Amino acid sequence: MDFDVIVIGSGPGGYTTAIRASQLGMKAAIIEREKLGGICLNWGCIPTKALLKSGEVYETLDHLADYGLSVDKRGFDFSKVVDRSRKVAAQLNSGVGFLMKKHKIEVIEGVAKLEKGSPAPKVVVALNAGGSRTITAKHVILATGARARTIPAIGLEPDGERVWTYREALVPKAAPKSLIVIGSGAIGIEFASFYRALGAEVTVIEALPRIVPVEDEEVSKTAQKAFEKRGIKFRVGASVKKLSKTGQGVTVDIEKDGKGESLQADVAIVAIGIVGNVENLGLEALGVKIDRTHVVTDSHGATGVAGLYAIGDIAGPPWLAHKAAHEGVHCIEHIAGLKPTNLTSPIPGCTYSNPQIASVGVTEAQAKEKGLAIKVGRFPFRVNGKAIASGETEGFVKTIFDAQTGALIGAHMIGAEVTEMVQGFVLAMTLEATEAELHATVFAHPTMSESMHEASLDAYGMVLNT
Amino acid sequence: MDFDVIVIGSGPGGYTTAIRASQLGMKAAIIEREKLGGICLNWGCIPTKALLKSGEVYETLDHLADYGLSVDKRGFDFSKVVDRSRKVAAQLNSGVGFLMKKHKIEVIEGVAKLEKGSPAPKVVVALNAGGSRTITAKHVILATGARARTIPAIGLEPDGERVWTYREALVPKAAPKSLIVIGSGAIGIEFASFYRALGAEVTVIEALPRIVPVEDEEVSKTAQKAFEKRGIKFRVGASVKKLSKTGQGVTVDIEKDGKGESLQADVAIVAIGIVGNVENLGLEALGVKIDRTHVVTDSHGATGVAGLYAIGDIAGPPWLAHKAAHEGVHCIEHIAGLKPTNLTSPIPGCTYSNPQIASVGVTEAQAKEKGLAIKVGRFPFRVNGKAIASGETEGFVKTIFDAQTGALIGAHMIGAEVTEMVQGFVLAMTLEATEAELHATVFAHPTMSESMHEASLDAYGMVLNT
Repeated sequence: MDFDVIVIGSGPGGYTTAIRASQLGMKAAIIEREKLGGICLNWGCIPTKALLKSGEVYETLDHLADYGLSVDKRGFDFSKVVDRSRKVAAQLNSGVGFLMKKHKIEVIEGVAKLEKGSPAPKVVVALNAGGSRTITAKHVILATGARARTIPAIGLEPDGERVWTYREALVPKAAPKSLIVIGSGAIGIEFASFYRALGAEVTVIEALPRIVPVEDEEVSKTAQKAFEKRGIKFRVGASVKKLSKTGQGVTVDIEKDGKGESLQADVAIVAIGIVGNVENLGLEALGVKIDRTHVVTDSHGATGVAGLYAIGDIAGPPWLAHKAAHEGVHCIEHIAGLKPTNLTSPIPGCTYSNPQIASVGVTEAQAKEKGLAIKVGRFPFRVNGKAIASGETEGFVKTIFDAQTGALIGAHMIGAEVTEMVQGFVLAMTLEATEAELHATVFAHPTMSESMHEASLDAYGMVLNT
Repeated sequence: MDFDVIVIGSGPGGYTTAIRASQLGMKAAIIEREKLGGICLNWGCIPTKALLKSGEVYETLDHLADYGLSVDKRGFDFSKVVDRSRKVAAQLNSGVGFLMKKHKIEVIEGVAKLEKGSPAPKVVVALNAGGSRTITAKHVILATGARARTIPAIGLEPDGERVWTYREALVPKAAPKSLIVIGSGAIGIEFASFYRALGAEVTVIEALPRIVPVEDEEVSKTAQKAFEKRGIKFRVGASVKKLSKTGQGVTVDIEKDGKGESLQADVAIVAIGIVGNVENLGLEALGVKIDRTHVVTDSHGATGVAGLYAIGDIAGPPWLAHKAAHEGVHCIEHIAGLKPTNLTSPIPGCTYSNPQIASVGVTEAQAKEKGLAIKVGRFPFRVNGKAIASGETEGFVKTIFDAQTGALIGAHMIGAEVTEMVQGFVLAMTLEATEAELHATVFAHPTMSESMHEASLDAYGMVLNT
């Protein structure tokens, strides 16, 4: 037995699992076919946030008079904006390397394939450096993640030039003058927000009747208004029939309300969801159950095949790095015989557009579908003192309580810095807080977060500042 | 009986109390001698945040290259910066007026004085419009707040020209080229941060051995380094012997380690604390107990004189608007016979400098003084992915747990947006969370708030990303 545990994939789910394994005294190895840190650190969460920060600051330069400030001329060097984002990704990537060394986790660079074995499948690694190596462990954890969904049949497939997924959208040679974003989930909206900030004409196409469709309906509505105010155009309830390369750009044929429309732009970004990286791992031969590109697991990540576990994107939605890390820590603590942290912890979701969106728990519609009696509270940032003082009055906080128990069951926010604020509601829900406890909590004045208190008071007719 | 309750003073403590009284079905009046919203909205928390935002954005203009951006020349119009701050204050002031109307609370503009009465003291108001009016109520609540402490004997007294308190510092005719700030609490540090952002030479004098002395020692140390990096100078452990007006400016004579030094500047700001507004209210004649400019109360705000209560700054430290509002809501709910929200709720404190400071609960030194066995966790923003992506890597999160019970008993943060993040720890402490619950909570990735999770893990040897 070479290791106690082998983790395949080094995104936040994978590398966190390996670190926790090491902390628990296990000898661990991690296999990565590309770059340590996976998509999240190299091609996802992290480099997009660097781009978005540049975009956000650039947008601020257009509103300086609001603050009594002025500049003669604003400008950006697109290659420097992209370069900064790559440097940030490189720093995080090297940080994971440091952590692996510190925790004495062996990093094996190559492509892993599983073969039958006991007590866990054997792992055969086609090494990036050439040759192959077979390793064994008591436990093997799949954390291979996911990639952009594409539909080649209608042209929704990256070509590296005019049709991008998130991956190409992170490193273009020049900023497109016009852009069509297909899909209005977090990834699509973040790129729309970034490229619009730098001046591109942006149109977002969404097949469902509203944008950011996993969010609460009121959030979708406010978000669309806010983005439209910044000049982003939308086609909602519109299905893409075909994406074609035409002239120097692309043409996207859509159908909305039975009518056809052709949209032209320099570039299209395909952001219609993701598929799990389940291929070429030898899963079929082992009898691993796969459901629509995702490995089926029990609540501890076990696949049903002895010694084989799966966590993160490959184990199903929500496709979020923090869900992956949380599942990984749970899985390895369970393997170690600990009573691990609760897998039913609520999982927040964030979109780092301008304005930002953050939420946790059920939407109002979901609560009603479940037949729950609910109390709903709202508080708009436009009457929050700190928001007014900062000139950031867009958006609101919405809370949803179970009317019977008083438990907070959902919270939805849109506005400045809400991605940093949502953790309070996540903590409250993890601690099963009721309205009484939220009401008794003292929120610092003046902060935007006071709106979280007010929205909790509002649900019970006790709001103070509206 | 004219009213159920009369509230004297309309700062956040006062006006919140009146609103809650109205929600509970009481007929309420509020007396204000100056402007609705009190010091906080008109001369404190709110207008300073507007100035600080201008300063913060202006500072960002100096670091645009970091983000791949550029401007030809940055500038500010000081009168517009101040004017914006006044407009923000005016908007909040008029908002309180709207709330008073909405809740049918009678606003009486004038100076109140108490006279003996039953079931509560009578209130005689010298009306601002002329004449006087005597009103009665079942309950009278003092919420008259506080003002800057001055020491005229050594020149620490505002003259409106060269010696300022926070009040004059909010509306100067021009930005001073050089500035001495006496006192490094939240108010002093915020003005130092703002005026330095606009280019003034700033020296801060602190009598105690470290700046922001109510904060954890590690925070003080990091704060001083961060401010010095921005060009602010400090004299700590230095006592002011005399402030004199000389030439066009001021001279401040200090003594440090037995040695004298004379500092010159255009202007000095006196920020050495506050005193409660207990004068001319007729409190002595009623037999109200006063301890060092503060009214002594029980845990419900009762003064011991029948029907007379006090909340907020006048009832003692911490001198924070959210503490005042919380006490006010508690007091009026207690009067109404409800079982009100817990007066022992932990009270966070925030300083909106650049970087920001936020904390709740005990410092490490305080925990040790209490003889508690503690576990301390730390996480620096310089290895947090979102902080790196945003270029805001200064600062850290520190957590303090009771080693016996696992309860979170203190949290200390310095860095970008920590004033919006601290509410998560406040909620955790209000809910009496233990380390296990904080560990089980899923913080969204990538956020600065993940550092709160990591600092909680670090206290138990489970930190993932350092």
